[in-house]
Amino acid sequence: MTKDRLKKLLAGVARGEVAVEEAFERLQSLPYESTGEAHVDHHRGIRQGVPEVIFGEGKTTEQIVAIARLMRRAGAGVLITRLSGDKIRGIRRAFRGAVVHEKARCVVIPDGKRKSPGAGTILVVTAGTSDIPVAEEAAVTAEFLGNAVDRLFDVGVAGIHRLLLQESRLRSARVIVVAAGMEGALASVVGGLTDKPVIAVPTSVGYGASFGGVAALLGMLNSCAPTVAVVNIDNGFGAGVLASVINRL
Amino acid sequence: MTKDRLKKLLAGVARGEVAVEEAFERLQSLPYESTGEAHVDHHRGIRQGVPEVIFGEGKTTEQIVAIARLMRRAGAGVLITRLSGDKIRGIRRAFRGAVVHEKARCVVIPDGKRKSPGAGTILVVTAGTSDIPVAEEAAVTAEFLGNAVDRLFDVGVAGIHRLLLQESRLRSARVIVVAAGMEGALASVVGGLTDKPVIAVPTSVGYGASFGGVAALLGMLNSCAPTVAVVNIDNGFGAGVLASVINRL
Amino acid sequence: MTKDRLKKLLAGVARGEVAVEEAFERLQSLPYESTGEAHVDHHRGIRQGVPEVIFGEGKTTEQIVAIARLMRRAGAGVLITRLSGDKIRGIRRAFRGAVVHEKARCVVIPDGKRKSPGAGTILVVTAGTSDIPVAEEAAVTAEFLGNAVDRLFDVGVAGIHRLLLQESRLRSARVIVVAAGMEGALASVVGGLTDKPVIAVPTSVGYGASFGGVAALLGMLNSCAPTVAVVNIDNGFGAGVLASVINRL
Amino acid sequence: MTKDRLKKLLAGVARGEVAVEEAFERLQSLPYESTGEAHVDHHRGIRQGVPEVIFGEGKTTEQIVAIARLMRRAGAGVLITRLSGDKIRGIRRAFRGAVVHEKARCVVIPDGKRKSPGAGTILVVTAGTSDIPVAEEAAVTAEFLGNAVDRLFDVGVAGIHRLLLQESRLRSARVIVVAAGMEGALASVVGGLTDKPVIAVPTSVGYGASFGGVAALLGMLNSCAPTVAVVNIDNGFGAGVLASVINRL
Amino acid sequence: MTKDRLKKLLAGVARGEVAVEEAFERLQSLPYESTGEAHVDHHRGIRQGVPEVIFGEGKTTEQIVAIARLMRRAGAGVLITRLSGDKIRGIRRAFRGAVVHEKARCVVIPDGKRKSPGAGTILVVTAGTSDIPVAEEAAVTAEFLGNAVDRLFDVGVAGIHRLLLQESRLRSARVIVVAAGMEGALASVVGGLTDKPVIAVPTSVGYGASFGGVAALLGMLNSCAPTVAVVNIDNGFGAGVLASVINRL
Amino acid sequence: MTKDRLKKLLAGVARGEVAVEEAFERLQSLPYESTGEAHVDHHRGIRQGVPEVIFGEGKTTEQIVAIARLMRRAGAGVLITRLSGDKIRGIRRAFRGAVVHEKARCVVIPDGKRKSPGAGTILVVTAGTSDIPVAEEAAVTAEFLGNAVDRLFDVGVAGIHRLLLQESRLRSARVIVVAAGMEGALASVVGGLTDKPVIAVPTSVGYGASFGGVAALLGMLNSCAPTVAVVNIDNGFGAGVLASVINRL
Amino acid sequence: MTKDRLKKLLAGVARGEVAVEEAFERLQSLPYESTGEAHVDHHRGIRQGVPEVIFGEGKTTEQIVAIARLMRRAGAGVLITRLSGDKIRGIRRAFRGAVVHEKARCVVIPDGKRKSPGAGTILVVTAGTSDIPVAEEAAVTAEFLGNAVDRLFDVGVAGIHRLLLQESRLRSARVIVVAAGMEGALASVVGGLTDKPVIAVPTSVGYGASFGGVAALLGMLNSCAPTVAVVNIDNGFGAGVLASVINRL
Amino acid sequence: MTKDRLKKLLAGVARGEVAVEEAFERLQSLPYESTGEAHVDHHRGIRQGVPEVIFGEGKTTEQIVAIARLMRRAGAGVLITRLSGDKIRGIRRAFRGAVVHEKARCVVIPDGKRKSPGAGTILVVTAGTSDIPVAEEAAVTAEFLGNAVDRLFDVGVAGIHRLLLQESRLRSARVIVVAAGMEGALASVVGGLTDKPVIAVPTSVGYGASFGGVAALLGMLNSCAPTVAVVNIDNGFGAGVLASVINRL
Repeated sequence: MTKDRLKKLLAGVARGEVAVEEAFERLQSLPYESTGEAHVDHHRGIRQGVPEVIFGEGKTTEQIVAIARLMRRAGAGVLITRLSGDKIRGIRRAFRGAVVHEKARCVVIPDGKRKSPGAGTILVVTAGTSDIPVAEEAAVTAEFLGNAVDRLFDVGVAGIHRLLLQESRLRSARVIVVAAGMEGALASVVGGLTDKPVIAVPTSVGYGASFGGVAALLGMLNSCAPTVAVVNIDNGFGAGVLASVINRL
Repeated sequence: MTKDRLKKLLAGVARGEVAVEEAFERLQSLPYESTGEAHVDHHRGIRQGVPEVIFGEGKTTEQIVAIARLMRRAGAGVLITRLSGDKIRGIRRAFRGAVVHEKARCVVIPDGKRKSPGAGTILVVTAGTSDIPVAEEAAVTAEFLGNAVDRLFDVGVAGIHRLLLQESRLRSARVIVVAAGMEGALASVVGGLTDKPVIAVPTSVGYGASFGGVAALLGMLNSCAPTVAVVNIDNGFGAGVLASVINRL
Repeated sequence: MTKDRLKKLLAGVARGEVAVEEAFERLQSLPYESTGEAHVDHHRGIRQGVPEVIFGEGKTTEQIVAIARLMRRAGAGVLITRLSGDKIRGIRRAFRGAVVHEKARCVVIPDGKRKSPGAGTILVVTAGTSDIPVAEEAAVTAEFLGNAVDRLFDVGVAGIHRLLLQESRLRSARVIVVAAGMEGALASVVGGLTDKPVIAVPTSVGYGASFGGVAALLGMLNSCAPTVAVVNIDNGFGAGVLASVINRL
Repeated sequence: MTKDRLKKLLAGVARGEVAVEEAFERLQSLPYESTGEAHVDHHRGIRQGVPEVIFGEGKTTEQIVAIARLMRRAGAGVLITRLSGDKIRGIRRAFRGAVVHEKARCVVIPDGKRKSPGAGTILVVTAGTSDIPVAEEAAVTAEFLGNAVDRLFDVGVAGIHRLLLQESRLRSARVIVVAAGMEGALASVVGGLTDKPVIAVPTSVGYGASFGGVAALLGMLNSCAPTVAVVNIDNGFGAGVLASVINRL
Repeated sequence: MTKDRLKKLLAGVARGEVAVEEAFERLQSLPYESTGEAHVDHHRGIRQGVPEVIFGEGKTTEQIVAIARLMRRAGAGVLITRLSGDKIRGIRRAFRGAVVHEKARCVVIPDGKRKSPGAGTILVVTAGTSDIPVAEEAAVTAEFLGNAVDRLFDVGVAGIHRLLLQESRLRSARVIVVAAGMEGALASVVGGLTDKPVIAVPTSVGYGASFGGVAALLGMLNSCAPTVAVVNIDNGFGAGVLASVINRL
Repeated sequence: MTKDRLKKLLAGVARGEVAVEEAFERLQSLPYESTGEAHVDHHRGIRQGVPEVIFGEGKTTEQIVAIARLMRRAGAGVLITRLSGDKIRGIRRAFRGAVVHEKARCVVIPDGKRKSPGAGTILVVTAGTSDIPVAEEAAVTAEFLGNAVDRLFDVGVAGIHRLLLQESRLRSARVIVVAAGMEGALASVVGGLTDKPVIAVPTSVGYGASFGGVAALLGMLNSCAPTVAVVNIDNGFGAGVLASVINRL
Repeated sequence: MTKDRLKKLLAGVARGEVAVEEAFERLQSLPYESTGEAHVDHHRGIRQGVPEVIFGEGKTTEQIVAIARLMRRAGAGVLITRLSGDKIRGIRRAFRGAVVHEKARCVVIPDGKRKSPGAGTILVVTAGTSDIPVAEEAAVTAEFLGNAVDRLFDVGVAGIHRLLLQESRLRSARVIVVAAGMEGALASVVGGLTDKPVIAVPTSVGYGASFGGVAALLGMLNSCAPTVAVVNIDNGFGAGVLASVINRL
Repeated sequence: MTKDRLKKLLAGVARGEVAVEEAFERLQSLPYESTGEAHVDHHRGIRQGVPEVIFGEGKTTEQIVAIARLMRRAGAGVLITRLSGDKIRGIRRAFRGAVVHEKARCVVIPDGKRKSPGAGTILVVTAGTSDIPVAEEAAVTAEFLGNAVDRLFDVGVAGIHRLLLQESRLRSARVIVVAAGMEGALASVVGGLTDKPVIAVPTSVGYGASFGGVAALLGMLNSCAPTVAVVNIDNGFGAGVLASVINRL
């Protein structure tokens, strides 16, 4: 409720056009107007620029299908992440138009509407091949949100020239997502080669003292490049959303 | 050295206008032109959109002044961060035009050039008053880089309405920086109220199980709002740079 | 054994009504009367206001049934927590009147006695839907102990208005339990909106840098609301007991 | 602003007794009335049952005195915690009626009003003598909030009979605060001896593998007594507030 | 080889009774006589007072049986620890006289020799019933090494009187082993009640912030009773060996 | 209160020789008889075989002297540990007969009584010279408690022959204390060379990844020698007490 | 591209023998010349002296076979590490000449070329038998890279004489790899006995406070022998490569 | 004592040329011959190829001077590390020929003997200027041990071309030491550019989530380049020794 609408409402009360009870009802739920079914957050898309997404891990195929149906009824496209092969098959059976992104372990049920594209390209980079599932989750999410995505995989720092050969692609991107496990050093190197925002996703790729992605996470948080920010370990989805939000500024 | 300049140089060689030795000298330091003292990276500003900045902690006043003089000679404005009161006084004595930002513990030596402003406003938010030095470091950095900055301090989640009353300011910002210590929950709440990118800076404010900012860091990395990315504990400078880079897209 | 009963016993000895040997037997196990099998602590209910409860994890169905039978014989109602679907089915077969709480992964075998209700309502709140099993464990425990329980689920901080719309329910509760994983910020927000004691239960919901609930745990311990206290990760049972103890003051 | 007052205000507007502009001003800051300087949260006392308190650590004497003066002008009593001897002396000079609690490292500036006492007694227990400053912070806070406080210090588990001899005091309390460092075992033992809520405060007392209070914190979180909840390391203030909130139910 | 035997050997060489080659062979492996297969350390029993024991975890039944056969041939009794039910059955089939200790998850193949008993009784105490497997591993190990063992289980600190009722058993032991998970507080309480050495074994019993036994480990290391020393988490075997070594002093 | 005394008391009541009130008083404080000033634990020496000791760190010289005077009045010898040079001087001024152990940072005020010596010798071993203060704390404590102590310093594992040359001293000891920082490997090596109990004290000697003694602590807890038990980091006092308790069995 | 080649290229441009466009193309990818398929890093063998190796964990047999076929076609020998029994069988079926190293969980597909041997012998040492798989991975890798390897297994520090008897083998090696779990002390002892470089591999052997190899890792990092360097937990492959690189200097 | 010398000794005994007592004395200290003052390890230089070095931190100037005098008398050159400015001045006063290395915080007292140089050059690289003290400690140590050292400082990964421009220096080194704090990524990049052994030294440079060098340590341990091994945080000395040992192979 904006200031204008608040003043209008009060003027209505003053003029007797709005009953005290009615004004009370509307003001009671200030500062947000409710839609009656409080916890269904259909407005979040507007508020945050991000539709609701289904996190598939820990949910059964049945639960996922049920939630997706509700969303579809509301007219929304649906993105479902963190899916095993079994669940992917179940969801495909349930929704005809479902598009499977195997490497990303995601399914998209499109709403058929055309989205205005973001201003530039989002580049998704990985250090190794094992980081690809997380990177693809980011890429598919960004595409789902209407962005053009460029992929540059397996350009880790132990063979730094592989990255340098692609410097022009780094430069032509508007936002860059870097997914890397083990020592996570790629984010710093990329951050040093470009003047674009870098969203770093530590992955749980590695063993021993990688501690499930902690080594990469710390490496990225301590990046000597000041244009790098970090999201949670394996959080390709978050990186994709944030990249989209920035690309659409 | 851009592609255009590279082609131009080669054409000069082909036309005999540029000597092989001279071309060699310039190409040797490709893709960056060196100034003789190789490691002084004056081109970083162009590459990353960020001038060199002096991290004042662990350096003596003499060292800081010496480095700043070098930078000044190269024509650059200088930002010096993490300064104690003693060092601030020493720097002010050494540089007439130095502008002191006491709360931010920073000094700026301006270059007198006008910067084109970023596209929108950067909003810097804190949970408590103790987070202000870190937030000011971010704000001063962003201003130094030519951005308009709005400050919204002391709106932590234990009095959530203080934040809600300022929702319009959240909405009118283009990029938001959130500095918070203790449980760091403010980043999630802000992320939930806006569709703009949120750069979260955990601060070392707190005691006991805050573990010097780790609790806030983990809280922010686990944010349920997918538009939040995180920088190192107390890294106001990095947040300011990244916010500027995004705002200037 | 209360002071009164001790004095009465001694008076009985003095009057010759109680034999020395008999008094010795009873005093030997002071300050608690043993039942012969010393370690069965049937008096704990009186001492702590909490009946013995069976922690189902790591026990076989047969072990659980055997312990529950012993308790039933002693006349007590039985609460069994942390049960998989298999065990739930086994227990239901063994006890006719057993009431299954599937979401809470608990079974209650009621004793048929009416409990005097606690003084007010215990409100159990969750941040997300994945926190519900832990929250239900708390709620079922509190109900088992005779309390009225109100449930308010899925009101996490990234959509803060969902919580604010329910502020009246926060205010009408006497004790509040907050179950939240990921960044655990809900506890602070709730603590800031009410003057009632808040028992925070970090849940292991999350991935990566949530470290199995550690991020939420630290967030809650560092809450900027001073009315929040914390129990172990996923410890819905403990939260339910403590809420009941407070509600019955 | 309660529902009643909201309805009254709207009725005033409807009747023309309250101008639209005036109503707008008051509603704009809904659901809390602002005082002009928005972030001063004088209403928090009503909302949370806790007056604002000054955390003295990291603030200069001058800053503390300035904040305390503002609070005094608003008519409130003031509690200042975490004070060194220097600051205590400075505050005493600034406020005549200031009452110093040396062991608690606190100063209270009373408002002269009589508070209705809480329903029962709050018992504050420590394991050792080194835990006393934290315990006293809890005790002084609870007294400042109008509660009767009983102190039982130095009854750690390595001499368990010292505690058992005082069992009657455990039983006559309505709420119990336990402050313990090192292994923090006292909370479990106390929790096993009583049916009252136990608020455990781990202290940073210890060395080596106590890790600044972490050992005690973990011990308390894993308490086998289900009536124990935990606050941050050395957070005597929080324990005192929560104990008061419970005692005033 | 003791000093006496060394002098005797050299005298033999001097007298020509021992050939240089033979002396060389024996001295080459000084200070321990080798049996040809150097790494089989049959002398360890003499050196450390402990026969070799087979750690069953991570070994197949076949591997265990093969190693046990080697040991049997050398005339030794054999203790095999950390066995699943499957392996226990396999070992029982392979060795007739094998004695199964199910709770301890151990098998003993006795050598039929009578051991001289240790000087006193070793008391093995547990906090809960879940700690029994670890405690039994300690008890069976101590019995295997010829000690009399007394067992006192399920006397955790949340019902402290269960322990106090058994104080005489604490006092009549010569060495005490305490196995406890969760907060591990029992070791401190026992240490405070007796003047005998207490060997504390943290167990991995617990969940959430018990971190697989870390909470108990830290609690025991920080014990306020100075007569407590700690072994690795779940290391019942080590506790049994050390208790035996002390009891046989 | 033993069983015999309990029966005697009840018989006295039965015979009218003991008044009910008097019996009540004595039984009330069961299972321990109080001395009136409950928390002064003069009986601990008898119960645990260890006199009270003053932990000097964090106490002022005045506090230490005051406590020591109380103890002296009770006729006890006093051991004060963790003293800086300043405090040592202050204590020496206050007590004539005080014996200073500079390396151990301890002061002993002897009671002039002769103690019966323990059965054997306690050997205190260190890896390096920096571990000597902790080792001396152990040695001085053990001597204070009446034991013969042998010292073997600076025999760390990187020059293993230094230790092997002293193997006879390892073998002639009855109990061995090993103080080592850095990797703490000495405890395992010593444990492998002897059949005596080994009490390992990790020291905070080291830097970087020694994490203040954690590396040594973990090394000792994971010792492959099963006769090693561990006390807290830098806890020379505890090691000395436990060694004495074992030596006096 | 060396300086010489750069000058030659520029001279070619100056002489008109090289077109500007062609020079541009080659200079653009400076400082590395690409082979067309950028990310296939066949040059790494030359650059680092190490052929590409397939890390088998987390890859399917099909994926492994496909990658190995590509490598074989390029004429390279192939080393595949971290293989389960299933995958080993699958790979053996696919490649006739494949040599299986069961203990090392590796397969080698030789290229039939003779390698010049390294200058000396690499000695691979383990503390226990459980460390052998990691040690064998190191040994097989070193052999695959053309080195002579000596193996010395099960000489852990709790029976230090087993190691001392083999001192001559320590001394005749040129590089030593030490694989040890639990407390990892063997690396320090070996480092103290030799003047050769020691590469320490912590293994995840152990339980409880070994924390999956962290105790051994910390022990090795804190080694008091200055000739010890450490690789990741269980990283036998890395140790083998580094040992080979040193041996071939 | 070699096998030959052992046989010779025994033959001497057999021939009556060596007395039994004398042989006993020499054999007693097997496997190492002692020099009478057992713990002075003058032979370590021969055994490990490294003279004793004085770790200056935590020692007084007096202690350092005394130890250095002992070493000088034995004819050795002395290296003293980790010195503050005060101690450096004190040592310089005590030893005329002392050479101060200020950046390295080291002093060398040369023995005037010429050392045969190592086979190649040791290259010491740093990421930033703050890593220089640790790098200089490594460089000075390596020079003290007779090696040629090349220094390449301030070539961190955020400006990767600074390093690439110096690739020839990487390639001409025989052993490389990399000192880096923050994310420590430089070690991986260097390891990817060369076929020489890389010794990585994490430094404690950084703040917040660098955790005193832990982020760099983990990054280096997880290096994707298999030719990297790691020493303790800030352990420039160890890196210098190990580099020397490798260079002298």
